[in-house]
Amino acid sequence: MNVGIIGIGTVGKEVLSIISCQRVKIEKLLGEEIKIIKICNRTFREEFKNYSFTFDYKEILEDDSIDTIIELMGGKDIPLEIAKKTLLSKKNLITANKELLAIHGNELFQLAKKNGVKIFFEAAVGGGIPILSPLKESLFPNKLKKIRGILNGTANYILTQMSNGSSYERALIDATKKGYAETDPTFDVDGIDTAHKISLLSYLAWGELKEFTEIKINGITKLSTEDIRKAATNNQKYKLLGEAVIDEKTEKITLSIKPTLVGKDDLFYEVNGIYNAVEIEGSYTGKTIFYGEGAGGSTTANAVVSDLYKIINSRSWQI
Amino acid sequence: MNVGIIGIGTVGKEVLSIISCQRVKIEKLLGEEIKIIKICNRTFREEFKNYSFTFDYKEILEDDSIDTIIELMGGKDIPLEIAKKTLLSKKNLITANKELLAIHGNELFQLAKKNGVKIFFEAAVGGGIPILSPLKESLFPNKLKKIRGILNGTANYILTQMSNGSSYERALIDATKKGYAETDPTFDVDGIDTAHKISLLSYLAWGELKEFTEIKINGITKLSTEDIRKAATNNQKYKLLGEAVIDEKTEKITLSIKPTLVGKDDLFYEVNGIYNAVEIEGSYTGKTIFYGEGAGGSTTANAVVSDLYKIINSRSWQI
Repeated sequence: MNVGIIGIGTVGKEVLSIISCQRVKIEKLLGEEIKIIKICNRTFREEFKNYSFTFDYKEILEDDSIDTIIELMGGKDIPLEIAKKTLLSKKNLITANKELLAIHGNELFQLAKKNGVKIFFEAAVGGGIPILSPLKESLFPNKLKKIRGILNGTANYILTQMSNGSSYERALIDATKKGYAETDPTFDVDGIDTAHKISLLSYLAWGELKEFTEIKINGITKLSTEDIRKAATNNQKYKLLGEAVIDEKTEKITLSIKPTLVGKDDLFYEVNGIYNAVEIEGSYTGKTIFYGEGAGGSTTANAVVSDLYKIINSRSWQI
Repeated sequence: MNVGIIGIGTVGKEVLSIISCQRVKIEKLLGEEIKIIKICNRTFREEFKNYSFTFDYKEILEDDSIDTIIELMGGKDIPLEIAKKTLLSKKNLITANKELLAIHGNELFQLAKKNGVKIFFEAAVGGGIPILSPLKESLFPNKLKKIRGILNGTANYILTQMSNGSSYERALIDATKKGYAETDPTFDVDGIDTAHKISLLSYLAWGELKEFTEIKINGITKLSTEDIRKAATNNQKYKLLGEAVIDEKTEKITLSIKPTLVGKDDLFYEVNGIYNAVEIEGSYTGKTIFYGEGAGGSTTANAVVSDLYKIINSRSWQI
């Protein structure tokens, strides 16, 4: 496997570290060698000196010896260009960019199919929780009915702090200080990040990626300390849930993102702080829950590296 | 894919039903047709009339057109004979038989490797919860540290009823009535079934299947109503946990099966009734938990059918 990596930030750095530290084990499972042909970043750091390095991502896109590109730069426009060129040049794509796929997925998945290559994105949903693969590869015999998830660690951290008595403002400052919230936390607190993620889960469950602009999204910014106190007196907590439901008769899929009350009898009640959880309801398996750390460099990097295995071992994964 | 099925009980019946009801979807993902070449059972039932049927499992073992055998008959000696002959005749094996693999796994996994075929057994651990595949295919980049699980639905149901005030005897009768406990529940309540399962999880995590006779196993039969009441006053519950831990320095793996106190801050506290949960601790992903129904015909059958996909799409899964 000949890999190029574009964007060596928190996650990219950990990807390099995992491949280097766990090489023997990983290659044994993959059944082939992993060669990091070239890496690209905006800035050069000392730790890159053992790799072939470039500032220009086009060098990676145009390198015919590379068969798989890992894109971890974040953002919108350049990743779209990179994704398209990657697929057009018949290279596989691994990305953690949920926004890119939730908005341009239809175009990109088709492009991948047409060019006989694959897009894998385990790192885009639920951080370190293996959720996309089990959904697609283990739960597929089911008629899937419903998916719901606590999918954004920042929002969940803020709600957890608020239920411990903090104000929204103080909780947000606290989240930012601890590195859980981005400088601009709009996507997290407004539910947009959750919408990206539930949209991708729904695509893998039912093969249809919803037009993103048509999804109704409610974030957590309108919740008051009073709302949360009231909930607590009823033994309930607010959680920012993304839900995807299919109507059994019409097969219409509905996505919703909103703060939702959950009671003590619901396992989601105890999903606190930066943790994520996804519940998948199937006709045969009933309710299955996947729980773990929703973000973080090494946990997300683990998901990225696991996609290398999927690239090799999944003949017909894409819809 | 040309399949033979041996043993059409509760699970086997559901396997036939899933393949028949979800054929289009499954074959699209698998990328090939599933042909049920022959089925075998001790008794004939009307619902088998559309299949090529035999009372003699040797007919399936000797059928050269079959490439994959699903063994769901249960028991010990005949399944071992079937497993060996399946692998020796270069057929893949799918089984839900944890006892067979926990005791004879080393021999069987080697036999599979030698003959270039695969053994898959997602249904053997955690019923409908996808756990073996995520452990092996998604969490592999991690240095795995620890696995713990509530792995036996019968024992967990009894403990749940006891924590609701029932006696052990009444809870067991109740479990039997509801079909959760076998006529002979020894393996469940004595922790042997849990030991089989944690042993298989440990094998997939670290590549070493422990000698079964060397595992220390404690069941739930010595717990008194008084023990459980005491635990409750401390906001704790007893759960029958299977644990597998690796010593970071010596790489020695230790398995233990025993009733263990869990507090309210532990998600396992709310894993009640027949539900199962497995927690996997990795160096990169931290703690990931998988939760769902631990037993039942359709949920176990879902796992069996998912293994058909794994057979096709996993080049180098076995250790």
